[in-house]
Amino acid sequence: MKSISDYRSDIESAVKNLQFPEGNLSTLYDPIKYALSAGGKRLRPVLTLMGADAFGGDTEKAMFPAIGIETFHNFTLLHDDVMDKSEMRRGRLTVHKKYDDNSAILSGDTMLTLATEYVCKVEDSILRAVLDSFNQMAIKVYEGQRLDMDFEKMPNVSVEDYVKMIEYKTGALLGTSVMIGALIGGASTKDAELMYQFGLNTGVAFQIQDDYLDTFGDPATFGKKIGGDINNGKKTYLYVAALSEGSQTAQALKAAYEIPAGEMRVKTVTRLYEKLNMAEKSKKEVNKYLSKSLKALNETALSANAKERFREFAEKLIGRKK
Amino acid sequence: MKSISDYRSDIESAVKNLQFPEGNLSTLYDPIKYALSAGGKRLRPVLTLMGADAFGGDTEKAMFPAIGIETFHNFTLLHDDVMDKSEMRRGRLTVHKKYDDNSAILSGDTMLTLATEYVCKVEDSILRAVLDSFNQMAIKVYEGQRLDMDFEKMPNVSVEDYVKMIEYKTGALLGTSVMIGALIGGASTKDAELMYQFGLNTGVAFQIQDDYLDTFGDPATFGKKIGGDINNGKKTYLYVAALSEGSQTAQALKAAYEIPAGEMRVKTVTRLYEKLNMAEKSKKEVNKYLSKSLKALNETALSANAKERFREFAEKLIGRKK
Repeated sequence: MKSISDYRSDIESAVKNLQFPEGNLSTLYDPIKYALSAGGKRLRPVLTLMGADAFGGDTEKAMFPAIGIETFHNFTLLHDDVMDKSEMRRGRLTVHKKYDDNSAILSGDTMLTLATEYVCKVEDSILRAVLDSFNQMAIKVYEGQRLDMDFEKMPNVSVEDYVKMIEYKTGALLGTSVMIGALIGGASTKDAELMYQFGLNTGVAFQIQDDYLDTFGDPATFGKKIGGDINNGKKTYLYVAALSEGSQTAQALKAAYEIPAGEMRVKTVTRLYEKLNMAEKSKKEVNKYLSKSLKALNETALSANAKERFREFAEKLIGRKK
Repeated sequence: MKSISDYRSDIESAVKNLQFPEGNLSTLYDPIKYALSAGGKRLRPVLTLMGADAFGGDTEKAMFPAIGIETFHNFTLLHDDVMDKSEMRRGRLTVHKKYDDNSAILSGDTMLTLATEYVCKVEDSILRAVLDSFNQMAIKVYEGQRLDMDFEKMPNVSVEDYVKMIEYKTGALLGTSVMIGALIGGASTKDAELMYQFGLNTGVAFQIQDDYLDTFGDPATFGKKIGGDINNGKKTYLYVAALSEGSQTAQALKAAYEIPAGEMRVKTVTRLYEKLNMAEKSKKEVNKYLSKSLKALNETALSANAKERFREFAEKLIGRKK
């Protein structure tokens, strides 16, 4: 198996080589090229290539499906950024800011169909399995995004519902990325399903860790400004888990979230989280999902070496290793 | 073969029986139910059922793909209405007006994936052919919508480009609707392709006829207000064909389109079209595409009776028969 950075550079080359119609349709395809050229960690297509490789498949045959997964991910970003009115992503203007809302909507639609085309460039023998898992994942992602939008307007969200939301919005895509790779590599249905569980739970652990870091992370390494979620009034794992600690705590937390955005709000909320040991509790939760993830991985028929590579991937993702 | 109205009522029942998740995801699925329950002529899924039936297939087996085609069509309407800021459709509020833009975007995305799922409920032996034709059609529809949006801002659009746009935006979906039905019915690749040509050219004839009727139609039967396209400054077949008549005509027409929207603009533009014999010219063009359509139909191995049924469908669609 190659190193993660080698898979990544293979993906970058493949993305650069994608061909789109020229001429008077540049208004449709330029936003797509712009979105796909933004780089990023390419985590999802790396998982697809790793999945194919680990089960003894040809990673060349997994490249189009991997690019399809990445195209799908970027389609969701285009539409999410329109819905959230986000202006920046990966240090550049979002597509709807650089072009306009209509371009982001229509080029996003095009990306979803292109993603389906790319993902389905597999042998006929696995087409049905790959297509079904891709479509089921896509539905979960929309449902997760809808729940996320709805939760922002709801006074109370249970930890259970929150975890379901991040399973759908983040976990399902990571699970499907590696599962489709595994299917291309020739994995059994059982192993493909186990790899889905590996990806799904790694995704959940990652999202809870990300919520934790947004409040308790090291400003030097986190990359974003600490306290952003608190200032944006976001319902994070920390928030919903703290809410579940009883009505008095819930009241105090809601009051703190009403403080005008700024240092005072961040400080007040953080102190409340500290009083409730939320840092330890969320770390425990991250470990719970990471354990689930590694348990599924261990149950596969993969070699010890391949398992080690996926374990490294998961631990690196949640910031255990740099 | 059943009558068109029988196919239609079968489709209405199937749409009513579609199951969606209940509970806290109603914010995602209610806009979909609302959109699909709007009725309309269900032309596209009728074509799918007719295609399956005509080639000796089981129309039951074509029902999910037919509903998939209709779901795809409605997905494009949801997003088009957001992009065009349209407030009414089929006598009701559009989805983004009844709910909001974000709901129309996200529920529209969900409909595209559901459409793909439904369309792919076919035998494994034809899955690849059905999926590929569906995806290729979808890309054409986005390209057609993009061209349509771009043409509105361009001073000159050639007749050739305009016809390409309506082939993509309207024709491709009609072609694919009947082609997928034909494949389900067991048509040969050649016959499936001929049926695509039948649908494609019928769609182009229909769109040109629709442009003609918007100016020259009978107010009693047209359904919309005569002159709407002129008042909206739309580039129709009449407009682009008139533009191609020479620079003096083009100048006069552009000037007429600058008159404030209202009766005076409609009258001035209509008189110009009359002077140029645009009514006759567009009727000739409709006939040209209808002939192409019927030529392809006649080349298939279908029975004389089945051919007659499709001919009736096409002629009814462009308003020759009521």
